[in-house]
Amino acid sequence: MQRIEAVERIVDRLESLGKISEEPDRLTRTFASQAMRRANDLVGSWMTQAGMIVRQDAVGNLIGHYPSVRPDSRKLLLGSHLDTVRNAGKFDGALGVLLAIACIEQLRNPVPFSIEVIAFADEEGVRFQSTYLGSRAVAGVFDVRDLERIDAGGTTMAECIRAFGGDPACVESCRFDAKDLIGYVEAHIEQGPVLESRGHAIGIVSAIAGQTRAQIDFQGIAGHAGTVPMASRKDAFCAAAEFTLAVEQQAREISELVATVGQVAIEPNASNVIPGFVRITLDVRSRDDATRQTACESLRQTVAKISQRRQVRGSWQIVQENPSTPCSQELSALLRQAAAKHQPNLITLPSGAGHDAAVMAKITPVAMLFVRCRGGVSHHPDESATSEDMSVALGALSDFISLLASRHEDV
Amino acid sequence: MQRIEAVERIVDRLESLGKISEEPDRLTRTFASQAMRRANDLVGSWMTQAGMIVRQDAVGNLIGHYPSVRPDSRKLLLGSHLDTVRNAGKFDGALGVLLAIACIEQLRNPVPFSIEVIAFADEEGVRFQSTYLGSRAVAGVFDVRDLERIDAGGTTMAECIRAFGGDPACVESCRFDAKDLIGYVEAHIEQGPVLESRGHAIGIVSAIAGQTRAQIDFQGIAGHAGTVPMASRKDAFCAAAEFTLAVEQQAREISELVATVGQVAIEPNASNVIPGFVRITLDVRSRDDATRQTACESLRQTVAKISQRRQVRGSWQIVQENPSTPCSQELSALLRQAAAKHQPNLITLPSGAGHDAAVMAKITPVAMLFVRCRGGVSHHPDESATSEDMSVALGALSDFISLLASRHEDV
Repeated sequence: MQRIEAVERIVDRLESLGKISEEPDRLTRTFASQAMRRANDLVGSWMTQAGMIVRQDAVGNLIGHYPSVRPDSRKLLLGSHLDTVRNAGKFDGALGVLLAIACIEQLRNPVPFSIEVIAFADEEGVRFQSTYLGSRAVAGVFDVRDLERIDAGGTTMAECIRAFGGDPACVESCRFDAKDLIGYVEAHIEQGPVLESRGHAIGIVSAIAGQTRAQIDFQGIAGHAGTVPMASRKDAFCAAAEFTLAVEQQAREISELVATVGQVAIEPNASNVIPGFVRITLDVRSRDDATRQTACESLRQTVAKISQRRQVRGSWQIVQENPSTPCSQELSALLRQAAAKHQPNLITLPSGAGHDAAVMAKITPVAMLFVRCRGGVSHHPDESATSEDMSVALGALSDFISLLASRHEDV
Repeated sequence: MQRIEAVERIVDRLESLGKISEEPDRLTRTFASQAMRRANDLVGSWMTQAGMIVRQDAVGNLIGHYPSVRPDSRKLLLGSHLDTVRNAGKFDGALGVLLAIACIEQLRNPVPFSIEVIAFADEEGVRFQSTYLGSRAVAGVFDVRDLERIDAGGTTMAECIRAFGGDPACVESCRFDAKDLIGYVEAHIEQGPVLESRGHAIGIVSAIAGQTRAQIDFQGIAGHAGTVPMASRKDAFCAAAEFTLAVEQQAREISELVATVGQVAIEPNASNVIPGFVRITLDVRSRDDATRQTACESLRQTVAKISQRRQVRGSWQIVQENPSTPCSQELSALLRQAAAKHQPNLITLPSGAGHDAAVMAKITPVAMLFVRCRGGVSHHPDESATSEDMSVALGALSDFISLLASRHEDV
């Protein structure tokens, strides 16, 4: 198949996948949902068509196995994730999975290692507020206590996994053995403005930014919106609003740091009642771990200061903390060699967004290929990448596999 | 029956009603809910026991009719509401209804006018974000367009009314004719700190504060929390947070004004996505209509300023506007005369909270009796009033009916 046809197929498949949603009129596909069931079935059928043996592991990751010409050889892993944020675009995650399947379809010669394409079941963490469930299971760093987390409907993660056809008792079985692996390579839209500003279709990722996720609660006192004088209020939402502006200001002042309050829950959430309780999430990221940690400590103190001054009870809880993850120099050099044929003046850039590759780096060398996206927009229906850029990415990834194969042949 | 026994019965009934909730472990009883169905059934049975003829009108108001000794005489209306906010206390609304029923039970002599006790179906407006549905139907100022409003579950008000056993096509039938009415008298917990600070069990209400409810939307641009630089964000929640602090500051600076952001909806509401859209409610109240209107105009301009500076799209929509409502001087004087026997140095105070009496004032003279509540707390499970204070209130209301009866006898 010509690359142009392969890209047309990717575009068609992105379109089909983009219609598989748990919400009408917009794309939302969360961990272990009915929509994810249909997505896995569809992507699994494409893997089968591409000559792969397809399985679903105990947490719901979909894995296509393409055998090696040598028995017992090691595996190259390719992939990304199939879950999405709420009201998502069609490219985030899905593009990496579809490029990987297209690489298998493009293989002209047998390869001296097996290739497994992994479509991770959860990277965004929307349903259970805990990201990378899929890759954490594969990397053997899944925290089984997470199985007790409950979603907005009150269902535990364990129940959801069972309903999805997985087995929460066998998360350990998802784990890959590091010694069987050559590495993990993930293609993904950049989700930022750098490649577009340079006029490049693709780029090589140097490192994935570290990230702290915290949950901040403000407990005030609910009261009647018409009768409690302003001076005696303990309004939890005013405290949360003040903290949110402090987060914004601090992040603006520090270069290479971003911080976001993205989720808000308010009680009792009625127009005529002073908010008594507010829970917000905080997401802080930086390439530099020390910068991130210093900022988080300062924001933790800000919660305490605001709480004390406003006489509300503030609490700060770290939900997740991932250090900055450098990509493998060796694997990235090979990817760069392959990609340079397709992209003049190829650049290396860090990733502000987290990726499954950051987790996979715990057990195997990782490399990442970024694909330009329009306006740097992601996590939004306007997310977009061109066929031309996907074609460049497919060429680079396919050539990377060939290069790796020729090296292995040499051994 | 002795007054002490009557108060014990009120306490028992408050307890029973307080257990009728649509949520486990906390009291929430909204318009036309299953919980309201059970509440109406129970309160209806008490009305029947008290010798009243009970009916439910087309929107779900429960009305007990106590006949006059004279045929075709006018009616005195007593009552309050049976719906609650979320996570409510047991006294707000329910106490006024139960005191009214207890007054009927206390009647020793026939009265020369009929008495109707009304338990309004919706005062708080939690389910449809539109308050006073019950009294607006009775006062003939129900806006039939409200029937198309939808609740959080996507059900229209019309459907809810039908499911409750009402008839949305016959809202007009709920209307009382002004010429048949003597007046409307409502007892209610104060929901504020004034009576407690004076050491008074009860007080007479001078006026009900005017109120503006607005809905404010901020439309920004959603984006990835890890990749969009702080400087290029259009974070809708930061805009809403800034506005919320401006509301708080402005209300603190103006005496006799309170303003509250009580309800928040945020999209997409995920920890790793910059908020793209936020909708908040604003509640502004003052005894003085001009003060309230000036404050609202200033806050409307604040929305515009914040939106312009942050390059988000802000919108301001008035949802409801009620002018300050003075109570009837004549009816209040009679209530004061009756109450003064039970409360030395009886005071008159304004109500910061809205009440059905404010709507009923459109068709008939109104008077209100406030009952002290602990700490001024309301709209909260800690809401509390003592048996002693309820006994004082019952004495005042019963004597008011006797006084009114003796006046009518004189005619």
